[in-house]
Amino acid sequence: MRRNLIPALLFICASALAQSTDAKPTLTGHWTANIDYYGTHADFGFDLTQQADKLTGKFRGDALEGATDGSSFQFFVKDSEGGTAQVKGTIVNNTLQGEIVETDGSAPTKAATYTFTATQRPQRASAASERHEFTPTVFYRQFSPFNKPVLTINPGDTVHTTTVDAGGNDFNSQKRVMGGNPQTGPFFIQSAMPGDILVVHINRLRLNRDWAMSDDDLVSRATDSDLAVKMKDAGKTIVWHLDLANGTASPAKPTEHIAHYTVPLKPMLGCIATATGPASAPPGTGDSGYYGGNMDFNEITEGNTVYLPVSNPGALLYLGDGHALQGDGELNGNALETSMDVEFTVDVIPNKHLPSPRVESPTSIIALGYSGSLDSAFRDATSNMAQWLADDYNLTPTEVAQVLGTASQYKVAEVADRNAGIALKVDKALLHPLPHASK
Amino acid sequence: MRRNLIPALLFICASALAQSTDAKPTLTGHWTANIDYYGTHADFGFDLTQQADKLTGKFRGDALEGATDGSSFQFFVKDSEGGTAQVKGTIVNNTLQGEIVETDGSAPTKAATYTFTATQRPQRASAASERHEFTPTVFYRQFSPFNKPVLTINPGDTVHTTTVDAGGNDFNSQKRVMGGNPQTGPFFIQSAMPGDILVVHINRLRLNRDWAMSDDDLVSRATDSDLAVKMKDAGKTIVWHLDLANGTASPAKPTEHIAHYTVPLKPMLGCIATATGPASAPPGTGDSGYYGGNMDFNEITEGNTVYLPVSNPGALLYLGDGHALQGDGELNGNALETSMDVEFTVDVIPNKHLPSPRVESPTSIIALGYSGSLDSAFRDATSNMAQWLADDYNLTPTEVAQVLGTASQYKVAEVADRNAGIALKVDKALLHPLPHASK
Amino acid sequence: MRRNLIPALLFICASALAQSTDAKPTLTGHWTANIDYYGTHADFGFDLTQQADKLTGKFRGDALEGATDGSSFQFFVKDSEGGTAQVKGTIVNNTLQGEIVETDGSAPTKAATYTFTATQRPQRASAASERHEFTPTVFYRQFSPFNKPVLTINPGDTVHTTTVDAGGNDFNSQKRVMGGNPQTGPFFIQSAMPGDILVVHINRLRLNRDWAMSDDDLVSRATDSDLAVKMKDAGKTIVWHLDLANGTASPAKPTEHIAHYTVPLKPMLGCIATATGPASAPPGTGDSGYYGGNMDFNEITEGNTVYLPVSNPGALLYLGDGHALQGDGELNGNALETSMDVEFTVDVIPNKHLPSPRVESPTSIIALGYSGSLDSAFRDATSNMAQWLADDYNLTPTEVAQVLGTASQYKVAEVADRNAGIALKVDKALLHPLPHASK
Amino acid sequence: MRRNLIPALLFICASALAQSTDAKPTLTGHWTANIDYYGTHADFGFDLTQQADKLTGKFRGDALEGATDGSSFQFFVKDSEGGTAQVKGTIVNNTLQGEIVETDGSAPTKAATYTFTATQRPQRASAASERHEFTPTVFYRQFSPFNKPVLTINPGDTVHTTTVDAGGNDFNSQKRVMGGNPQTGPFFIQSAMPGDILVVHINRLRLNRDWAMSDDDLVSRATDSDLAVKMKDAGKTIVWHLDLANGTASPAKPTEHIAHYTVPLKPMLGCIATATGPASAPPGTGDSGYYGGNMDFNEITEGNTVYLPVSNPGALLYLGDGHALQGDGELNGNALETSMDVEFTVDVIPNKHLPSPRVESPTSIIALGYSGSLDSAFRDATSNMAQWLADDYNLTPTEVAQVLGTASQYKVAEVADRNAGIALKVDKALLHPLPHASK
Repeated sequence: MRRNLIPALLFICASALAQSTDAKPTLTGHWTANIDYYGTHADFGFDLTQQADKLTGKFRGDALEGATDGSSFQFFVKDSEGGTAQVKGTIVNNTLQGEIVETDGSAPTKAATYTFTATQRPQRASAASERHEFTPTVFYRQFSPFNKPVLTINPGDTVHTTTVDAGGNDFNSQKRVMGGNPQTGPFFIQSAMPGDILVVHINRLRLNRDWAMSDDDLVSRATDSDLAVKMKDAGKTIVWHLDLANGTASPAKPTEHIAHYTVPLKPMLGCIATATGPASAPPGTGDSGYYGGNMDFNEITEGNTVYLPVSNPGALLYLGDGHALQGDGELNGNALETSMDVEFTVDVIPNKHLPSPRVESPTSIIALGYSGSLDSAFRDATSNMAQWLADDYNLTPTEVAQVLGTASQYKVAEVADRNAGIALKVDKALLHPLPHASK
Repeated sequence: MRRNLIPALLFICASALAQSTDAKPTLTGHWTANIDYYGTHADFGFDLTQQADKLTGKFRGDALEGATDGSSFQFFVKDSEGGTAQVKGTIVNNTLQGEIVETDGSAPTKAATYTFTATQRPQRASAASERHEFTPTVFYRQFSPFNKPVLTINPGDTVHTTTVDAGGNDFNSQKRVMGGNPQTGPFFIQSAMPGDILVVHINRLRLNRDWAMSDDDLVSRATDSDLAVKMKDAGKTIVWHLDLANGTASPAKPTEHIAHYTVPLKPMLGCIATATGPASAPPGTGDSGYYGGNMDFNEITEGNTVYLPVSNPGALLYLGDGHALQGDGELNGNALETSMDVEFTVDVIPNKHLPSPRVESPTSIIALGYSGSLDSAFRDATSNMAQWLADDYNLTPTEVAQVLGTASQYKVAEVADRNAGIALKVDKALLHPLPHASK
Repeated sequence: MRRNLIPALLFICASALAQSTDAKPTLTGHWTANIDYYGTHADFGFDLTQQADKLTGKFRGDALEGATDGSSFQFFVKDSEGGTAQVKGTIVNNTLQGEIVETDGSAPTKAATYTFTATQRPQRASAASERHEFTPTVFYRQFSPFNKPVLTINPGDTVHTTTVDAGGNDFNSQKRVMGGNPQTGPFFIQSAMPGDILVVHINRLRLNRDWAMSDDDLVSRATDSDLAVKMKDAGKTIVWHLDLANGTASPAKPTEHIAHYTVPLKPMLGCIATATGPASAPPGTGDSGYYGGNMDFNEITEGNTVYLPVSNPGALLYLGDGHALQGDGELNGNALETSMDVEFTVDVIPNKHLPSPRVESPTSIIALGYSGSLDSAFRDATSNMAQWLADDYNLTPTEVAQVLGTASQYKVAEVADRNAGIALKVDKALLHPLPHASK
Repeated sequence: MRRNLIPALLFICASALAQSTDAKPTLTGHWTANIDYYGTHADFGFDLTQQADKLTGKFRGDALEGATDGSSFQFFVKDSEGGTAQVKGTIVNNTLQGEIVETDGSAPTKAATYTFTATQRPQRASAASERHEFTPTVFYRQFSPFNKPVLTINPGDTVHTTTVDAGGNDFNSQKRVMGGNPQTGPFFIQSAMPGDILVVHINRLRLNRDWAMSDDDLVSRATDSDLAVKMKDAGKTIVWHLDLANGTASPAKPTEHIAHYTVPLKPMLGCIATATGPASAPPGTGDSGYYGGNMDFNEITEGNTVYLPVSNPGALLYLGDGHALQGDGELNGNALETSMDVEFTVDVIPNKHLPSPRVESPTSIIALGYSGSLDSAFRDATSNMAQWLADDYNLTPTEVAQVLGTASQYKVAEVADRNAGIALKVDKALLHPLPHASK
């Protein structure tokens, strides 16, 4: 079985008390409910409108009707297949607490009963942005919502910190944690709520030691039968010397034919992610998906901006797996793995859907697709960019086709992990003459 | 970055006290170490031989040398790249406890120091096999090694239990847990150790209620552009009536052209898995892999046997996601999802590698492959079967080719989830004339 | 560039004289035009209705208007984008001959002028069906419309003939033609016209010599990196002895572990095809596609029926590449290649679209999909079957989903050639209760 | 069946008379035989050494022994499986003519007998390079060896010519041929022989009219289910205005949101190919493969050089399908299709194997891979580049891995046709410090 089989009504939740400007409490607004559904927690948004004592609103397309007396509330929803939800509870400190009893209109199940609490989005901080110096002491190996945040910051704030290498070694060549892309974070961003977009601008991404580790092999996704046979005896670690002064890397002990091989450094983050939602299994830090993760995309570099969906209150941002440089796709399985000095600034775009991660450079917008094959990732990246152009430039589908047909630049982002990745870039200069939807 | 970058020597561990038959304690034997590697736990096997006070043995291809005085021990290992491990500790109640200090021969990291405990495989129970009646009260949504076992059994034992449907509803149509293939288990099988194979024979798999739930849609992996457009308005739940007396299913409220459509029941388990190793992120119960999991293979039925690799002491067996019947691949995303009455018997094959799950029916051996595309799953299933024929019949590669070329039956096992699945079947009657390796 | 860029109006053609039953000539009817478009020939159908001297009709969705005086005719068409076609000519012996002048409404090209002839479908023979004994003397290596038919037959007729093996060797072990699946045919089936379906029932498919040739290797589509390395020294020919009396095959000189390996014979045709259309490059006999071809599907056997689209007058049926037996997918690149004794009966279903080849056995209907990957072939097979169920049982898309979800049996048909193939089978017994569209 | 089943010995051929410098005729040298194998022609190379009357040499790894008397010759070959070839004939005007009788050592076939002629490579012209002005009057729709060459040139020569657009329209907007990428050529390059590499340097590639044609749709390889539904009403032709003075393109009648959309011109050839070998079915001009063909790679531009394998005497170069510009992959199925003014210079690298087409720009070397999926094309491109680095820089497999891991730039070349294409680029500046094999 593939899907969750959570009846639609599960996503129907509850409401709470908000202080209106005229000092009268009102439940009007957008709420996020956290349910305890037979032991599993999940977050969902819904909308309430209070007029006098009457409550109306929307739950995933279905209308709700109910009432409140200021300290308690109840409402009722019926969906198109005949399912119902009876929601009731109390209002305590701007929080709704209560119980949902739901029936399924499409299946002969008995009514389900479970509890919830609901809160409204905290107001975005109006104070001046801060810069935080953060020294990590713990490193996580899952993009989990259950790891305790290491720092709470506001939108607009900047964090300066460090990451260990993919093997868990820090700037001082000291092992700090088991390998497998251990992450710095999670950072809790105030006011970020599920359904938002987290914006991470990478102000600075610099090397902080003089060596990196990689392999002498090619990943199996890159090798046909002939090449697999040729590579059959490979499998050793290669240490690269990083010449920070000159901005180049070269094998520390090169073999004969590549004795003079040197590559310019281009530091990048192999991983950047928000935590996944609480109802699903948290992915390991070698995996990628809608949440970002181990994308190994070599344009996640200083000066660029990453857009990720928010699945939990506070977003819970992770980053790590720095590469001194990486060819497209991370062909060796490891790139030039090293520790990193990072500074980033965050922001939040409320209530905007992001189908897959996106990146913006000074000159390009870049839609990413990660999936089980390059063919599938290619479709995902294209769909992601088509949505971007429709959202931001009001393009119709056939206009999207004309722009993509003439402007698309596709590169292979990732072949080293469970998901393959494709990046679709469009030059901002081509889009500049198009009216932006926000204007 | 793809791989773990755990230095090879991490897998070099420790030893312990075993009571020899002549009452003299000896460390000789196969040990499983559980390390605490900077906060992450992992299990690894190694071999010790004690002669007088001298210790020798093997750690992943490298020789160890050391000594013991009966209450403490130490040994040293050097690998081919110059890395070293200095292992030392004490012997307490047949358990080794100590510390490993390792250096990396290929990278300029500092020495890593971490603790471990090691135990030998518990003796397999010699008592008569038992039959256990087990009523589940908790259901898990990850194939995790961290869930507490619900029952401890011995190889040879039989368990009779039930599973809830993929949506978390039981035989009584009562919601018991959030949907997403919640599992019964984990069952702890005594003496099963990492590196073994767990054998699960499904004695009985019967329906225990008269309805199942499915969809009216096709998964995107099955739809080309034309079919995607045709299916654009689908997305409803379909309830099927299960006629247990006659052994058939039909839509509870069929539409016009399928008013008389009826399909024979063929109960199967969508999920069966061992827990994954402790160092990696536990997969959700919608995922599949080397550990089995949500394989949705419609030959995991009564009378058949499933082979799964053991990654943790006790194996930690999960099962669930019963389907009253399912076409190949689970095209609707849901099959005919229902609760189930299950009886199974377990066994353990010690120290045998299993690259991917396997199934055996009275007439066929079946090698499975699960990966990000059908093309990749096809290669995995073929490689799995090639290994099976080599292991069990001593076939050389070109003999494998001749048998597979004439005997292969491939079916599509799974298209509904992140992994696609392919099953490669070979008729046992064709293999019967071949000398078996075990004879 | 992908597509033909033949303006839509190219497909607008011409008309001709038909003798009506009351001895008055009329142009009313369905015509097939053969155009000479700047040196390339192509066939297209169109419809005319004559009322007195007035002509009306349809050209690919666009209305035509014109007139005839009995010996000449002209008509005019305008499409939705403003393109036009001026068609005129003379009527000679029930054939239209003339010229088309067309302009393109969407592009600034100059008018194109080209000639055509058009004929109506010949009446289907009413005589009793015949059985033809045909001894091939020439064998073709392309599914080409330009090879001269070797025999002209009527729908309902039966042909008994032989095929050489994939290497061009006949029943007498004599080389007759270069290898690469040389074909017997093409057979010209009277009255078959482009847009029809050719039905080929295989009455008899028998071996006619005692040996077959195969390989000891696995095709690269089946080998992951590990298996590729294992197979690196393979590549020899394997001769199989065919025991016609006992119905089995075994390696002629088996190696040690497969000394007693024996497989039941199951003769099949690796290739069966209609010629492709005259405007495109004829495929070689190692290729497959909408026309059938080298499908290597091991259920194209005695007793089964194959459905293929007609792309040329006479259909031009080819067959060859007999296999004494074959595991799914033809893993060795060659199956057990041998010469064959074949008897088949043909029929024609007029004016019915077939998206991809189909097969019918006594117990199943089978939709095939052939494409560049298994993933893509899987979608094609599913789409082919969905269309079949919609056409023959009036199923709506969501009814198709319910039937496929419960009844689909997918097997891998082909992995040895440029296209991979998937077969989707549905048990006829399950469909029997559904009202058939033709009743 | 997949492969040709032509016994290895078929490739053993014949010899001929060469005039040695001291006026004594000798058969010593590399010969290309053209066989007439039961009606099919094929070309193969072999080597002879004449000492006095004795002949020795090599046929595909097997030694030959024979003799000549100046006007006739004969020799004998035996392969490792016991197959034999008896070759004999006469020497006429520096050409060998004769007969081959071969037996198969691995299969019980009767001896095969067929004729051949063989010639040596013509001497490369020593005259000064010429520039040819060529006006095409015929355009071909297959990359066939059977089309009559339109012009014979020498290595070093330059040709100035024109191509029609993919729809067959010339610079004057006049239809010249049916659409489907009709080609200018084939050009016969003196001295080019099978087994060589043809080098085509594009000196000049300029537009010669002010419009191009494209589509408003996306190819199905680029659309997931969601995007397919969005694009369901697309399918119209889009005319683009080409502003040759300013070097830009824009839709001729743009819709609202792209009213000001303008893209820089970057003229490219969608097709460039050598003819395929005479024994296989010639591909249509919409297809691609080892021979190049419809690669739709947007770096086949002015200033770049294309490398293609030679499969026939004279190479038989085709080119066409000019695009005013194209986004990566040709997402619309058509790029901006237009006629083109082309000037190119050819050269021949004798006796060097090319696994797949390659391109060289002033700054990069680019290995191409074309196959049935992006995943497969990705492996092909990687294998092609790995071979290039091994051939030209003597890199070992693990050195190849280190260079590719740090230097690879992958882009998607093609998604619009039967084959998908991937291009793997490496910066020449990175390779410059590596010793070149030729030095």
